[in-house]
Amino acid sequence: MNTSRLEKVTQNMRAQGLSQILVTGTANVYYLTGLWCEPFERMLALHVTADGGMKLYANRLFALKGLSDVPLIEYDDTDDCISVLAPDMLPGELGIDKTWPSHFTIRLMQARPDIRPVLGSRPLDDARLIKDAEEMELMRISSRMNVEVCTRIGEALKEGCTEKEIQSLYNQLALELGASGPSFTPLICFGPNGAQPHHDSDGTRLKAGDTVIMDVGLLWKHYCSDMTRTVHFGDVTDEQKKVHDIVTAANRAGIAACRPGVKLKDIDRAARKVIEDAGYGPCFNHRTGHGIGLDEHEFPDCSAVSEAVATPGMIFSVEPGIYLPGKFGVRVEDLVAITEDGCEVLTWV
Amino acid sequence: MNTSRLEKVTQNMRAQGLSQILVTGTANVYYLTGLWCEPFERMLALHVTADGGMKLYANRLFALKGLSDVPLIEYDDTDDCISVLAPDMLPGELGIDKTWPSHFTIRLMQARPDIRPVLGSRPLDDARLIKDAEEMELMRISSRMNVEVCTRIGEALKEGCTEKEIQSLYNQLALELGASGPSFTPLICFGPNGAQPHHDSDGTRLKAGDTVIMDVGLLWKHYCSDMTRTVHFGDVTDEQKKVHDIVTAANRAGIAACRPGVKLKDIDRAARKVIEDAGYGPCFNHRTGHGIGLDEHEFPDCSAVSEAVATPGMIFSVEPGIYLPGKFGVRVEDLVAITEDGCEVLTWV
Repeated sequence: MNTSRLEKVTQNMRAQGLSQILVTGTANVYYLTGLWCEPFERMLALHVTADGGMKLYANRLFALKGLSDVPLIEYDDTDDCISVLAPDMLPGELGIDKTWPSHFTIRLMQARPDIRPVLGSRPLDDARLIKDAEEMELMRISSRMNVEVCTRIGEALKEGCTEKEIQSLYNQLALELGASGPSFTPLICFGPNGAQPHHDSDGTRLKAGDTVIMDVGLLWKHYCSDMTRTVHFGDVTDEQKKVHDIVTAANRAGIAACRPGVKLKDIDRAARKVIEDAGYGPCFNHRTGHGIGLDEHEFPDCSAVSEAVATPGMIFSVEPGIYLPGKFGVRVEDLVAITEDGCEVLTWV
Repeated sequence: MNTSRLEKVTQNMRAQGLSQILVTGTANVYYLTGLWCEPFERMLALHVTADGGMKLYANRLFALKGLSDVPLIEYDDTDDCISVLAPDMLPGELGIDKTWPSHFTIRLMQARPDIRPVLGSRPLDDARLIKDAEEMELMRISSRMNVEVCTRIGEALKEGCTEKEIQSLYNQLALELGASGPSFTPLICFGPNGAQPHHDSDGTRLKAGDTVIMDVGLLWKHYCSDMTRTVHFGDVTDEQKKVHDIVTAANRAGIAACRPGVKLKDIDRAARKVIEDAGYGPCFNHRTGHGIGLDEHEFPDCSAVSEAVATPGMIFSVEPGIYLPGKFGVRVEDLVAITEDGCEVLTWV
């Protein structure tokens, strides 16, 4: 177990009035125990009490025995896992990790009507928000590798290649470089496909004049990177050039606003204002960014309603975009780490 | 929307006493609406009432507008999605899809204390359990492609290659053949790594005498395949040969037990008995199989406690194994589809 992280989490629990929480997300369990376990549909749950007590409930198949100093309670596929867990929970409020599949929560409520489930991720979210020195270094390396692979797929763009091929090439190069894989399915969008921020890469072929969005990230020792570069293949129209310039300026304005004490909604505002002033406001239809670390999307959002305050050690994306249906899209995304007097851009290397 | 599937689901709802459910899993929403949407951390919810009413709640970013005939209510990143959903729910019991992240359920309970969340996946699970003709054909194709790619990675095994390389090759060949990707991260295990049923493929290099487990599957039009083949690289010891023969016999005994009317626990028993009789009972430490379709693991389990009854149209895996820590593991997995008078093995082609 990581005692300094546990101390941060239990401090948050006490401050938030939570006497017990169930930590169930893979990254959250790893953060506290050092055990990386993807349980899929099976139950993995770490019970944490405000006094620092921890007990881990895991399927015997996960083979976690002896891998950590956290007390381990194992169950088998033929056991009802909730019957194993339920008796150990304290009565009253129980903080539940945000992503725990609802059927576990509902079955636990049925087994223990004296327990009241409440939102329970904040103690972990607030701790993970501020990266320690070791995490910061892993995030730097992850981004450095990502920049390298992104550059290489940009160089591989050829007339007639498909989005899927470039996606596959990204995954292959990331593995070759030593990453354990992509941190999310690479979003490679050619031409009009780029106008859909969440387009699924397909067999679309690259042709002259296409704007290309490459939104990619990889995993380095469980830490995620994420960046977006937009390039134009062949001749570029004035509109493509202009829109790209506006988005780049919005990205730079957002980054320029990143320093301790600034609310994330004001960083969103700084980026969004550039796009609005240029007359493209309605074409930027998503938040400006999101936290990142062990998970690709972490607390907090950098959106128009985000009251979170930039603090040294926070890492999040700044990724404004302009999307023109039927034509093309442009997004420029960097990861910033808040420092004592401003920010470090992890994706500028 | 698919009216015959909706009819099956609402019939199940009425039989199970559920007047309303929230369908939130990607595959479940697809099953009823034909819309494939992976919402990641954002909310996607299809409210279904027992009289066949449907309403879909989705983030505007998902761009689902006009793609289906189901009434669509969109929200933005700056909206509180639960405030958009909550007012439309009926008071009383509300069936919640099993995988819905708990924070949505908890926030909904807070917004609507007059709603009581209960387990709500069974109407969908029970409908999806029995594949219709169209689904059956997609499952056949998915398995046929999987057999081909699995054969090809088997042929590519060379002294010194790594598990990660074979994993990557599987993904690449699956894409080349037209699959949209693997249905799960391929499990490639060399030598002693195979003794851990859930070993994460790593940089381990293949050497003479290794037993190799290849547990792989791909996606064909959203339908999953899944199979495991075990091969021996180079000279094989008597023990490796014997264990492989026992596991193959267990797999065949399980398959032989597959016919309408048989409980899945008896299929588990048939396979497990072969391994127990050979003295390796404690070395087979997982269920014999699982349902499969749009999801890689579906209801029901084929385990020692599964009361589900084999019915024509059901598809599940039969995958006994023997795991010898420090030495090697053997698993043999096929997919069977229950027919009117027995079963069809989708992975024997």
